[in-house]
Amino acid sequence: MVRETGYPSASYSITVRLDIANRPGMLGRVATRVGEEGGDIGAVDIVEVHDDMITRDITINCRDEAHGDLLVAALQRIDGVSVGNVSDLTFLSHLGGKIEIANRFPVKTRADLSRVYTPGVARVCMAIHEDPAKAYTLTIKRNAVAVVSDGTAVLGLGNIGPLAAMPVMEGKAMLFKELAGVDAWPICLDVTEPDAVVAAIKAIAPGFGGINLEDIAAPRCFEIEARLKAELDIPVMHDDQHGTAIVVLAALLNALKLLGKRIEDVRGVVNGVGAAGTACARMLLDAGIGDLIGCDREGILDPTRADLAPHHLWLAQHSNRGGVRGGLSEALRGADFVLGVSGPGTITPAQLAEMNEPAIVFALANPTPEIHPRDVPPNVKIMATGRSDFPNQINNVLAFPGIFRGALDCRASDITEGMKLAAARAIAGSIPASELHGTHIVPSVFNRKVAPAVARAVIDAAYEAGVARRERRAVEHEGEFGGA
Amino acid sequence: MVRETGYPSASYSITVRLDIANRPGMLGRVATRVGEEGGDIGAVDIVEVHDDMITRDITINCRDEAHGDLLVAALQRIDGVSVGNVSDLTFLSHLGGKIEIANRFPVKTRADLSRVYTPGVARVCMAIHEDPAKAYTLTIKRNAVAVVSDGTAVLGLGNIGPLAAMPVMEGKAMLFKELAGVDAWPICLDVTEPDAVVAAIKAIAPGFGGINLEDIAAPRCFEIEARLKAELDIPVMHDDQHGTAIVVLAALLNALKLLGKRIEDVRGVVNGVGAAGTACARMLLDAGIGDLIGCDREGILDPTRADLAPHHLWLAQHSNRGGVRGGLSEALRGADFVLGVSGPGTITPAQLAEMNEPAIVFALANPTPEIHPRDVPPNVKIMATGRSDFPNQINNVLAFPGIFRGALDCRASDITEGMKLAAARAIAGSIPASELHGTHIVPSVFNRKVAPAVARAVIDAAYEAGVARRERRAVEHEGEFGGA
Repeated sequence: MVRETGYPSASYSITVRLDIANRPGMLGRVATRVGEEGGDIGAVDIVEVHDDMITRDITINCRDEAHGDLLVAALQRIDGVSVGNVSDLTFLSHLGGKIEIANRFPVKTRADLSRVYTPGVARVCMAIHEDPAKAYTLTIKRNAVAVVSDGTAVLGLGNIGPLAAMPVMEGKAMLFKELAGVDAWPICLDVTEPDAVVAAIKAIAPGFGGINLEDIAAPRCFEIEARLKAELDIPVMHDDQHGTAIVVLAALLNALKLLGKRIEDVRGVVNGVGAAGTACARMLLDAGIGDLIGCDREGILDPTRADLAPHHLWLAQHSNRGGVRGGLSEALRGADFVLGVSGPGTITPAQLAEMNEPAIVFALANPTPEIHPRDVPPNVKIMATGRSDFPNQINNVLAFPGIFRGALDCRASDITEGMKLAAARAIAGSIPASELHGTHIVPSVFNRKVAPAVARAVIDAAYEAGVARRERRAVEHEGEFGGA
Repeated sequence: MVRETGYPSASYSITVRLDIANRPGMLGRVATRVGEEGGDIGAVDIVEVHDDMITRDITINCRDEAHGDLLVAALQRIDGVSVGNVSDLTFLSHLGGKIEIANRFPVKTRADLSRVYTPGVARVCMAIHEDPAKAYTLTIKRNAVAVVSDGTAVLGLGNIGPLAAMPVMEGKAMLFKELAGVDAWPICLDVTEPDAVVAAIKAIAPGFGGINLEDIAAPRCFEIEARLKAELDIPVMHDDQHGTAIVVLAALLNALKLLGKRIEDVRGVVNGVGAAGTACARMLLDAGIGDLIGCDREGILDPTRADLAPHHLWLAQHSNRGGVRGGLSEALRGADFVLGVSGPGTITPAQLAEMNEPAIVFALANPTPEIHPRDVPPNVKIMATGRSDFPNQINNVLAFPGIFRGALDCRASDITEGMKLAAARAIAGSIPASELHGTHIVPSVFNRKVAPAVARAVIDAAYEAGVARRERRAVEHEGEFGGA
């Protein structure tokens, strides 16, 4: 069911326990066979040594499940090797769930109990009842984000339902904690109608300081986000839309720095106008891009088309100043930048060759991009994808932890366009000019400076927009990640 | 707003920083003054020593906030003592919230990321999509309980709303983790209509293995719980009702053991038939009590009364076999056991004197019981309250952690009457016969044997009732708290 990714990676690695005859050259034969079959060997651990036999655990990155089976079969055929247990590290790391609750201090005595629970807790409840803002100091609301999905558009897997969406939301909660100290809890909804989704999220909102919407299918995601933003007093962001848009803009800003161009002079094309594409288009317009053309499968979005959904009509009306008609080929002719957020192989080298030189190409379809980096014509000077095995990975892990960190720390009531633009500039700015390069326009997702820089920029923008509800001095007195 | 509890306790303790003149006898004067004013001194820490002055932090248990203010004022009046910062330990322990998320393993490298998040997580999602039962092994559903309140009946504080209810739900989450290793997340709902509460909880149910309803006002709590039990495939329990009922039954079973009586021979009275009282009455009937009379403010519930709500009518029809009419006095005459779940001072010594000897009295109104233990007549041989400063505290902390631990471990679809009875018997059984005493019929809430014993009993009862969905052998191979 899961599409083949075509290259061995840690996302499908197996650990194979082998009993290997204890004589010279045997490990070499094992390693050679794995290499011949296209597997990448990682850790090699000794489990037990006997006179005639060594037991080893060998971890191998494979392309996919079939490739793993093939490798195991190949190892079994080596004379003097016997295959024992085979474990799939991805599944192993999910066993029993990936997150848990931790108490911030122990509850071991009756005195502890009487403070954190009855009867002492009653005074804390009444303090919040008398001044609701105190929920931000006396409860986890201060640091809690709900990662909410209805399971209708999970990764590239489609509408697989709320239960099957849980591993993604839990993974996201891990990243929130690891990268920004945010306490995120996965909420997978058993409803999909916009009214029901909005009602459920509004109902559970009091205990959270922010709502991260995730993997909700277009066009429902637009209505759901818009209504929640209007009706809740805590920040709400659909990450598939805005997280992607923020990182795309960050990467584009750095590409333009390298090429010495201004965004006002850029003619861009967005190929694919689903949830992410639409948000990217809006953000590029907000950032002042010279002109923009949106394309769906039917071709260029133009306001005379009768088949446009409301968000596509809006985009058609606010872009394509030159009134270009036709398909993707017509759109790309003379363009400086193309963003692909569509499907595998939807852009041809010939189409890119019609773009201006230097051209910038972001091909984000995952795992197979709109065009493979090796196939782009020479006028393309900077390229980015959604994959971690090519340079310049566009990954919203760069955006969401710092954005919510900042929004929580200043008790923002909303995430404004200004806050998103500030986040994009902060991500771009986290690569010093001296380190910018055509293959390094996006910082690493493990660059620990990114989330705090994004948080600071978001906080500044929140105060500027008037949506921060905390005394500014209090925020500035805190350390990174908002202190306790 | 919070009622005075009348005795100094750790639930209201302050830490006072004092600059004390460095001469003999000064600490004695401070301690004496605190004692004279009715405060209990706990820790005395030295902060700094100078030639002429010592700075100390003195922790004092007070009765309430006014008492704390009075103590501080009294200390200020001592010559040679200057009062610095005063901190309230209960509020301090709530600062920033009491729980947090912890990742079960670090995410530090790209390989980690590709396993717990994209692209590897997609395979895990698809495995659950193909076999939904795998959510119990591959996500936190296995160990997650939502502690859900609508804030309408929080402790004895009434309808203080969802934000103000958060500290109780967070405190409960702490106890779930500390006592049973359950990962509980507080959900405070911004809706109170039964339809809306049921809809919100059903919507968020997929990611949880159980729902602990909390502090929801009667009579709505009955409908909400009944509908959720019928419509969800995970266990649902309103703890204010059933947690209390389970511990009451446990205490009664031990009291009867001590007195050498059978429950079939007991005539009981339940004074106060709100959420907890009604559930206790039902459970006592399920446990086979000889007869039972329920009383509300208007007197004995009898089926001819025109003012009875449906749950009261049910109780009236299923109790009071002798057809007694009248008020609490008539009900108590010749009774063996009375359970008070009403309000302060609602039972008189004269009423208790009309009960049989030996009489058993559980007076659970908190903080002021229906009758003070010192005021009961000599025919009362065993007494329990809801307070931690008298013997035999009835506290549902003894029940809910083990009940949900057991229900999660066997993947129960429901919490049945049989599981609740089993829990009560396990709580009772956790005091060995040799340690039973009139002042020790209830185990300590910090008795670490209780939750595992309850869990084991609940698991057995779940298999017996056919609501356990996990292969029995798998449960038995796990250690305490269900392993990973």
